Amino acid sequence: MSDIFARTRELFHMPQGVLYLDGNSLGPLPKAAAARVASTIQEEWGGELIRGWNTAGWIDLPSRVGDRIGRLIGAPAGTVVTGDTLSIKVYQALASALDMRPDRKVVISDSGNFPTDLYMAQGLLRSLDKGHELKVVAPEDVEAAIDETVAAIMLTEVDYRTGRLHDMKALTEKAHAAGALAIWDLAHSAGAIPVDVTAARADFAVGCTYKYLNGGPGAPAFIYVSPEHGEKAIPALSGWMGHEAPFAFDPGYRPAAGVERMRVGTPPVIALVALDAALDAWEGVGLDEVRARSIELSERFLAEVEARCPQLQLASPRDPLQRGSQVSFRFEDGYAAMQALIAKGVIGDFRAPDIMRFGFTPLYLGMDEVLAAVDTIENVMTDRLWDRPEYRKRSKVT
Amino acid sequence: MSDIFARTRELFHMPQGVLYLDGNSLGPLPKAAAARVASTIQEEWGGELIRGWNTAGWIDLPSRVGDRIGRLIGAPAGTVVTGDTLSIKVYQALASALDMRPDRKVVISDSGNFPTDLYMAQGLLRSLDKGHELKVVAPEDVEAAIDETVAAIMLTEVDYRTGRLHDMKALTEKAHAAGALAIWDLAHSAGAIPVDVTAARADFAVGCTYKYLNGGPGAPAFIYVSPEHGEKAIPALSGWMGHEAPFAFDPGYRPAAGVERMRVGTPPVIALVALDAALDAWEGVGLDEVRARSIELSERFLAEVEARCPQLQLASPRDPLQRGSQVSFRFEDGYAAMQALIAKGVIGDFRAPDIMRFGFTPLYLGMDEVLAAVDTIENVMTDRLWDRPEYRKRSKVT
Repeated sequence: MSDIFARTRELFHMPQGVLYLDGNSLGPLPKAAAARVASTIQEEWGGELIRGWNTAGWIDLPSRVGDRIGRLIGAPAGTVVTGDTLSIKVYQALASALDMRPDRKVVISDSGNFPTDLYMAQGLLRSLDKGHELKVVAPEDVEAAIDETVAAIMLTEVDYRTGRLHDMKALTEKAHAAGALAIWDLAHSAGAIPVDVTAARADFAVGCTYKYLNGGPGAPAFIYVSPEHGEKAIPALSGWMGHEAPFAFDPGYRPAAGVERMRVGTPPVIALVALDAALDAWEGVGLDEVRARSIELSERFLAEVEARCPQLQLASPRDPLQRGSQVSFRFEDGYAAMQALIAKGVIGDFRAPDIMRFGFTPLYLGMDEVLAAVDTIENVMTDRLWDRPEYRKRSKVT
Repeated sequence: MSDIFARTRELFHMPQGVLYLDGNSLGPLPKAAAARVASTIQEEWGGELIRGWNTAGWIDLPSRVGDRIGRLIGAPAGTVVTGDTLSIKVYQALASALDMRPDRKVVISDSGNFPTDLYMAQGLLRSLDKGHELKVVAPEDVEAAIDETVAAIMLTEVDYRTGRLHDMKALTEKAHAAGALAIWDLAHSAGAIPVDVTAARADFAVGCTYKYLNGGPGAPAFIYVSPEHGEKAIPALSGWMGHEAPFAFDPGYRPAAGVERMRVGTPPVIALVALDAALDAWEGVGLDEVRARSIELSERFLAEVEARCPQLQLASPRDPLQRGSQVSFRFEDGYAAMQALIAKGVIGDFRAPDIMRFGFTPLYLGMDEVLAAVDTIENVMTDRLWDRPEYRKRSKVT
């Protein structure tokens, strides 16, 4: 197993002196992405100009890259497309689900969902103006909240703060039994843990690609639509690239077959080729192996930090099978402590109000780095570096 | 004047043997964009990792690049943001306008509007399900169609097929007099002709950046919201980057001030820096000069083609002040004729059903190239090259 990861770590650029435990926020640069973007820019955009849409296959990138992501989340070919942002894809999924359950007015989400999912839902429900209600419950109360008034559950499988893992299969089953649909946000799942949207019978799934998939800052999102719904789902954002025949330039919209209708505008070619190249790292790598190694890393990290840093309170589930590929701690001065860590080369991140978050990414992170990071965490905590004024000054992005 | 363009043409990469009259579809590669993307990928993504959001200023790119576009369209600082695709930005503009005119149910557009604008409107009206009607009239009938039932006019200033130019100021005035709002799509205007959204009193303006602004294939779009409406406009697609305090991670959405609320998801950093670098070409260049030179080029082109290619029927207004920066001809075998032209190095494009379209872009296109292109067009027409089977085979993208 370690041989696989010895090979994959060579595929990434990692700056000297950095211990990177934030691949769950932004994956590092895959060397292949830099090379691929350079050649796309110079040879394709520069050399082919407008012809690149055909000659370089730009027009099919959203589906081609989508299929590659599909293989990492148990989605059959032709059920995933890439493009836009996760916010937009959440909107499309929820709008479709509500359209398919016109008599139901409740959407269930939880307080561990990433805020943009909740915001997009709020905006959609406001626009629809049909008396829908977004019920946001505690993560552990989702199951009990599902009843026959519910049109859809909209959940992020892995809680972005705590790493708490929902049981996607069980909750989807519960939703279906009540006649509701299930929308899963895989932002912290795709590339982090084994996911099987087919086995879980998810109706829609969405995700971003700049975390565990290493697609680059602001990389395009993806959306999966169950083949069951392919011809029923409305795209809501009905752009020309989701039209049955975009280059007929018809005045009336006709949705393309299946998930293709979830494409919206002109695809972001440069960003998509960066992502495409980043996905090369997954060739020959199984998510089961990644998961096993991630648990090994995070269990050791958790045990060492708890033993050596009594100031930090575990915010993640203790059982590794109940959490994603991150470990979070609560600490009142977590923002400043994280700044001190970053200044010392250990990069994790902070999530308001008090969460220090560390991600485990076996593709390029090994046990040596994890243990070295723990040493630095211990130093920061022991020396109370969070008290220094230079670490208390807030940046725009935390 | 020619000195300016002698300087700007050096800023672009143009492949040998190509006469490029399709910058109105995809602008060529600015050399600075290639260099900037490479350094952003290697030094910022590669070297700074997640820190790049602060240290490299990624988080402000949508507004910073928006302001640079604003200067080309007469928009004050702080009224334009970039991101997403034009389709998404059309949706946001129209959703906001309809929200501001709740008692009116008619949206006016025209048959010369680009289909995705119409499709997005159709999708929005279907979602709203409040009895709105999208009235699509002939371009010359727009003015007469504006009455007190109209919530908004939604028009593309320059017709993508014919190049016909709407009178933005007059139609906006008419709309306002009737109590309606005006949404302008500047896809074929920004960087092509002088635009002044402030003087025209446009309520919303949107555009893409991969045409005359040379931002690259699938480059991010922009949206302008009049400062008058900044605090009233609803974003409709209410994502976390349009939140007043994105990193507070509040469960409830609160729109950011002004146009910032039109930001949606995580910004596409790599695409935005390509666009930012592309905009360098406009430093010290006035749109009046560009327009004067574009008219000079297109008038000569039009006269030569009409004199030498009687098979081609002018589809653009003859008066250069009535058209944008393109000249189009109708020809029954236009698709095959354009393929033959492209094979001979003259790149224009084809728009169904029968439009051959040629764009004029003084930043990198001179009179010598225009005249050489006319020679090739004459050859293709005289030799009836469109009859050859190899040119009749349809590509996916036309």
